[in-house]
Amino acid sequence: MNKRTVFFISDSTGVTAETLGHSLLTQFDAENFNQVTLPFVDTIDKADHAVVTINQVAADEGVRPIIFSTLVRDDIREHLLPAEGLFLDFFQTFIAPLEAELGVRSSHAEGRAHGLIDENQYDQRIEATNFALNNDDGTQTRDYEKADVILVGVSRSGKTPTCLYLALTYGVFAANFPLSEDELESGRLPALIEPHRDKLYGLTIEPLRLQQIRKERRATGRYSTIQQVNYEIRAAEQLFKRCGINFLDTTHSSIEEISSNILNSTGIERRVRP
Amino acid sequence: MNKRTVFFISDSTGVTAETLGHSLLTQFDAENFNQVTLPFVDTIDKADHAVVTINQVAADEGVRPIIFSTLVRDDIREHLLPAEGLFLDFFQTFIAPLEAELGVRSSHAEGRAHGLIDENQYDQRIEATNFALNNDDGTQTRDYEKADVILVGVSRSGKTPTCLYLALTYGVFAANFPLSEDELESGRLPALIEPHRDKLYGLTIEPLRLQQIRKERRATGRYSTIQQVNYEIRAAEQLFKRCGINFLDTTHSSIEEISSNILNSTGIERRVRP
Repeated sequence: MNKRTVFFISDSTGVTAETLGHSLLTQFDAENFNQVTLPFVDTIDKADHAVVTINQVAADEGVRPIIFSTLVRDDIREHLLPAEGLFLDFFQTFIAPLEAELGVRSSHAEGRAHGLIDENQYDQRIEATNFALNNDDGTQTRDYEKADVILVGVSRSGKTPTCLYLALTYGVFAANFPLSEDELESGRLPALIEPHRDKLYGLTIEPLRLQQIRKERRATGRYSTIQQVNYEIRAAEQLFKRCGINFLDTTHSSIEEISSNILNSTGIERRVRP
Repeated sequence: MNKRTVFFISDSTGVTAETLGHSLLTQFDAENFNQVTLPFVDTIDKADHAVVTINQVAADEGVRPIIFSTLVRDDIREHLLPAEGLFLDFFQTFIAPLEAELGVRSSHAEGRAHGLIDENQYDQRIEATNFALNNDDGTQTRDYEKADVILVGVSRSGKTPTCLYLALTYGVFAANFPLSEDELESGRLPALIEPHRDKLYGLTIEPLRLQQIRKERRATGRYSTIQQVNYEIRAAEQLFKRCGINFLDTTHSSIEEISSNILNSTGIERRVRP
């Protein structure tokens, strides 16, 4: 298979077109594609300009590109149709059956998917992000009353990025608390989080993967020895089991999967929808 | 229009189904929908269980739900088809034309869109997130040599969430540096960022909106007076113009739009694709 160029074209950020196209491309061999995003194609002029770009690539590569688009306005979409490429438009495909089902016409308003329609949603996400930052690593604020969830686990098990992702994507208030060696030795839940037992959710990880991650941070010292890593993980998992804390192995999961799993198994409500 | 229930069904996290479904729903009136995500439907058993859930909702509400799905395995999808709902599957719709175009069969492997296929991609995102955290607010590390972009702007103009979003979504290394009153008074670029002028990108915001955001943080004091906010924003914008720094008004934009705009206008390469 020759390398193909894939265009993501949108009248807004291109995030939806990228998400759609990328999911589909993972079903093929992703290395075979050059990916180009053309966001904010919201005038006929820009659409015509995009056609020139696409046709140039088609001519240069001798094979027509694939175009994933999320164009709401029919007139802009029509100007893109003559482009030399396989044109897959997401709105055109699904808006009609939805209109028929709902018995109403869609608004045909562009840029609503990831635009700031609702300041409340923006504020929610920002507030949740600030909460995650302030309640990171158990060191600063410990505003656990307000937390939807408190992630616990050993150093570098994925707590911080997961909290930030939960905040930015879903507006969920996620704190995190590290299980240090002292706490693991006592075999008890740290006094600071013990009162919030119901909100605790554990993250664990395979020792070899954790060692690899820790080595990137600190190449030498006990912190990244396999003995230390083995000990901490075993002790953390025993603590989770003893205290009846749900936990998840993050080794083979993406940040999205970890987050989705947490929401799914705790039943925490998304305050914002992606 | 009666309130409809919408299901997002996926064999993986549901993030793709949510993103795509949500984009479509924004073309209608989003308040008219109850949204339910059923992730990790990766066995026939779970598919049958989802059908029971959907049919129950259909019976209770007297109107059939809308089902957005991203199911890769045909056998699982087939078990969902009898559900009482409008079934819109994103993979089924687009995989066939893609296979025809590329002349190859897709892998039909589930959970690849947001799964951890590639540890490098995960590491990139984590590294970028740590970079954003360490280079936040100009206070700690100032590892600007490694930055792809350094966001500058007054307090609460949206720098931190944008940096984190760029890191988590695209693996981009984004630092940020606040323009404090002292710096604005001098009318010059702070000495710490002056050597990295090419990497600077400004954020600005309308005074009334900034005042509202600041008031949520500190209700009283000069920080959130309209005079102070007006002064800081005018001075920051003048500085951007004088120094030839690209800048963006974040007032009516979502975090996705701000991020997408920055990548688009700077030409910074995405290290990771959503």
